[in-house]
Amino acid sequence: MLDYNVPGGKLNRGLSVIDSYRLLKEGQALNDDEIFHASALGWCIEWLQAYFLVLDDIMDNSHTRRGQPCWFRVPKVGMIAANDGVLLRNHIPRILKKHFRGKPYYVDLLDLFNEVEFQTASGQMIDLITTLEGEKDLSKYTLTLHRRIVQYKTAYYSFYLPVACALLMAGEDLDNHVDVKNILVEMGTYFQVQDDYLDCFGDPQTIGKIGTDIEDFKCSWLVVKALELSNEQQKKVLHENYGKADPENVAKVKALYNELNLQAVFEEYENGSYAKLVSSIEAHPSKAVQAVLKSFLAKIYKRQK
Amino acid sequence: MLDYNVPGGKLNRGLSVIDSYRLLKEGQALNDDEIFHASALGWCIEWLQAYFLVLDDIMDNSHTRRGQPCWFRVPKVGMIAANDGVLLRNHIPRILKKHFRGKPYYVDLLDLFNEVEFQTASGQMIDLITTLEGEKDLSKYTLTLHRRIVQYKTAYYSFYLPVACALLMAGEDLDNHVDVKNILVEMGTYFQVQDDYLDCFGDPQTIGKIGTDIEDFKCSWLVVKALELSNEQQKKVLHENYGKADPENVAKVKALYNELNLQAVFEEYENGSYAKLVSSIEAHPSKAVQAVLKSFLAKIYKRQK
Repeated sequence: MLDYNVPGGKLNRGLSVIDSYRLLKEGQALNDDEIFHASALGWCIEWLQAYFLVLDDIMDNSHTRRGQPCWFRVPKVGMIAANDGVLLRNHIPRILKKHFRGKPYYVDLLDLFNEVEFQTASGQMIDLITTLEGEKDLSKYTLTLHRRIVQYKTAYYSFYLPVACALLMAGEDLDNHVDVKNILVEMGTYFQVQDDYLDCFGDPQTIGKIGTDIEDFKCSWLVVKALELSNEQQKKVLHENYGKADPENVAKVKALYNELNLQAVFEEYENGSYAKLVSSIEAHPSKAVQAVLKSFLAKIYKRQK
Repeated sequence: MLDYNVPGGKLNRGLSVIDSYRLLKEGQALNDDEIFHASALGWCIEWLQAYFLVLDDIMDNSHTRRGQPCWFRVPKVGMIAANDGVLLRNHIPRILKKHFRGKPYYVDLLDLFNEVEFQTASGQMIDLITTLEGEKDLSKYTLTLHRRIVQYKTAYYSFYLPVACALLMAGEDLDNHVDVKNILVEMGTYFQVQDDYLDCFGDPQTIGKIGTDIEDFKCSWLVVKALELSNEQQKKVLHENYGKADPENVAKVKALYNELNLQAVFEEYENGSYAKLVSSIEAHPSKAVQAVLKSFLAKIYKRQK
C-alpha cells in the first residue's frame, strides 16, 4: 500500500523543504543531519499528499492516478482504501516523533501539520459541496469562491507547508512570518489559475493529460472569468453547455472562451500577478527569505506544464 | 454533519475521562476549570469515535448507526462522508490547541491522540484484511488474531485513552504507567469477548440489536473458541456453515456452540479474566489508580448489555 501510493509523484513539495532550508542557510553547506531532517519533513508532505490523493480519488470516483489505477480500484482494496488513507496520514506524526521529538520546534511541527491538514480538508469540503451532482448551479461560481477553494484545498499544503517546515528547522517562529504565508498563498492561487488555464489551453502532450474541467463542471478560473465578462446571451451559452460530457457542448464553451479572448485575459492576469508577487517579495526584510520565495516563483512563472 | 455524527452515543468513553480524573484527585472537589478541561478531553474522544464510525460504516457498507441511517447513506452525502470523517478528526487537535496549548502536558496529549489513532487504524486494517470477501478462511481465526484485532481496534481508544487523558491532566508521566496501559488493554479485551458472547447469547431486547456475527463471518471469540474445542467432524460443520446468511446455516452454528457448551466456557473465561484483572489492579502501588481501574471493571463485569 505504501509502495503503491507514496512514491510516483513529482516530489515538488517534498524537495521544496530542502531547497528552502538551503536558501535560508545562505550558502552555508548543510551537514548530513540537516539534510536528513529536511528530507524527513519533505517526505512527511509527500505522505500527506498520498493520503489526500487516496481519499480524493474515492470521493471523485476517479480512474487513474500517476499513470496507474487509483488505489481503491485495485482488486481486493475497494473501500479499505479509506482506512489506508488514514494509515498513510498516521505515519506523519510517527515520523515526526521518531526524528524530531527532542527538537525545540517539535510541538510547532505538530501544530503546523494539524492546521494545514484541517485547511486542506476544509478546502476539499467547499469544493465537494459546490460541485455536488444535482446541485449544478453556475451562478455560485465567483472569483471569491474560486479563491477560497484554491487557498484552502491547495495553497496551504503545497506552497506554505514546505516553507513553514524549513523556517521551523531554521529556528524561526512562524507567528513572525504571516507575510510569508500570505505571499505563498497568493503564489499558490496563481499556480492553480495556471492549472485551470492549462487544462483548457495547454498542450495535452506537454501537460501529460487531457483536461476535462468543462465536462466536470469544475469551478475553474476560466469559467469564473467567462461568467464575469459575458453578456446575457453569452451567459446563456455557458449555462446551457458547461458541465456536459458531449464534445459538442464542450466545443461551444471553448468557442466562447476564445470569443471572450480568455487567453489574453489570462496573460494579463499572469503578468499582473507576477508583478505583485515580486514587489511583495522585495518588501520582505530578509534576503534569505526573499531568495526562498523568488526560487518558488521562478519555478512556476510562465510554466507550460 | 457535526450534529448528525458526534452526539447520540452512550458517551461512555467521554464520561470516563471525568470519572477517572475525579478518582485520581482522591475526593478533592474539582473546580470548574478542571471539570471543563476533563470534559473537553472527553469530547475529543467522542469526536475520535465519530470519525472512526463514519469511516467504518463506509468500509463495512453498513446501513444504520445509533438508530439512524449511516452518514454516507444520507442523500447528497455519499462519499463526501470520507472527507467529513477527516474533518471530524481534524477538530481534535483544534480543541486541544484551543484549550491546552499552554499546559505542560500539551505535547503529550498530541502524542497520545496520534498514537491511539494509529493503533486503532492498524486494528481496523487487520480486521478488514482478515474478513475480506473472497478470502473467507476460518483456519486463520485464532485466539492470537482475535486478541490482536481487539487490542488495536478497540481497547486502546476505548479503555486506555480516557484514563491516559486523566493521568496527563493529573500531571502524570505516561511512561510510568505502562502497567496501567496493560491492565486497561486486558480489560478492553475482556469487554470485547463479552460483546462477542452477547452478540449470540445476549437478549436482543436488552442489548438493543440482533447479532449477525455468524452471518458476517466475524472473527468472534465464540468461533475461535469453537474451532479450538472442535473435533474434525465439528470443524467441518463450522467450515460449511459459518459466514452464510441463510438462517439454517446460522442455526447449525448455534447448535454447535451449544453442543460445545460455549456458555460455560465463556463463564469460566469471565471468572478467570475478572480474577486476573483484580489481582493485577491490587498489585498497583497507587490507591487512586486502583480506584480508577476498579471503577472501570465494575462497570463491565457480568454486564448483560
